[in-house]
Amino acid sequence: MESQNKVSNGAMDGVESKRAKERGGRTTSFLLLRFMALVLTLAAAIVLGVNKQTKVVPIQVVDTLPPLNVPVVAKWHYLSACVFFVVSNAIACSYAAISILLSLSGKKSSVLITIILDLLMVALLFSGIGAAGAIGLMGYKGNSHVRWKKVCNVYGRFCNQAVAAIALSFLGSVVFVLLITLAVLRLHKKSK
Amino acid sequence: MESQNKVSNGAMDGVESKRAKERGGRTTSFLLLRFMALVLTLAAAIVLGVNKQTKVVPIQVVDTLPPLNVPVVAKWHYLSACVFFVVSNAIACSYAAISILLSLSGKKSSVLITIILDLLMVALLFSGIGAAGAIGLMGYKGNSHVRWKKVCNVYGRFCNQAVAAIALSFLGSVVFVLLITLAVLRLHKKSK
Repeated sequence: MESQNKVSNGAMDGVESKRAKERGGRTTSFLLLRFMALVLTLAAAIVLGVNKQTKVVPIQVVDTLPPLNVPVVAKWHYLSACVFFVVSNAIACSYAAISILLSLSGKKSSVLITIILDLLMVALLFSGIGAAGAIGLMGYKGNSHVRWKKVCNVYGRFCNQAVAAIALSFLGSVVFVLLITLAVLRLHKKSK
Repeated sequence: MESQNKVSNGAMDGVESKRAKERGGRTTSFLLLRFMALVLTLAAAIVLGVNKQTKVVPIQVVDTLPPLNVPVVAKWHYLSACVFFVVSNAIACSYAAISILLSLSGKKSSVLITIILDLLMVALLFSGIGAAGAIGLMGYKGNSHVRWKKVCNVYGRFCNQAVAAIALSFLGSVVFVLLITLAVLRLHKKSK
């Protein structure tokens, strides 16, 4: 009888340790994804945050004289869409760092809070991507109806760097979408 | 013994009917929210989709002659950000209609699919809001660095209508956020 109990206890321990291992594996993959989100949004904020280009443009002041070479500067904080983009990525990055700490604390209630905050980050990041993307497209193409001329033919490097930042931020928000999807899948599995 | 069984059966029936009522109430509130999302995104798409303003602007062609009155038109499809906004709201509206049908079918697997699709709608709508918002702000304020002049002093009604559309779309996406939050809360409760 005792030996039977021992065997069943051993089997239980095996199941428990397997479950604990699975749980640990899942937590590690969640942490890895959060770390990826942190790195990507940080990189997006930095790539656009350090974006600056100075170019010398010849400007004709008087018809009879040769054109004057005037240096013109493009900075990220000249455009409010870029400011919004950098701020939203900085917020998402800071939140990712905090959420890693929250995940490490292992509280049950934190699962729900992180899903909701992840969702808010998705909303924030995508609005930033939309804003920077719309202004970027206007910079590349211009618009004759509102008489906004394209500027990316002058500030080529600035525009390319902005595109890289938008791509990084997009990847970061996809990671947040993935985090929510995985957390919801986990809850759905548990609820069965 | 028989009467005891009857009493316990009666109590069970009471609990079951209470649960069914609760479930029904929740489903109705979800359907109501989905209907709100449908109406709000549809309204946003229509308000910007019918947006058009013609204005007569005096243009000085020759200095010695009085200015010519030229009619200028603002249409939503002149700006790619507005096109993206209308398309994203139309997609979200169509999806809301489909998700109402999915909810009515009452399949268990559809809960998971709707949460993920709701999430994609949040991403889509917020990027549309960001794009239209950035171009709208540029229209209101202009930007001296890229030499894009403000246009909302000419097309005032067009800009105000665009702001109304953005506000409607924002409310629609908040409803989608609410739907995801409630569904996750429900799953979290069940998983306990």
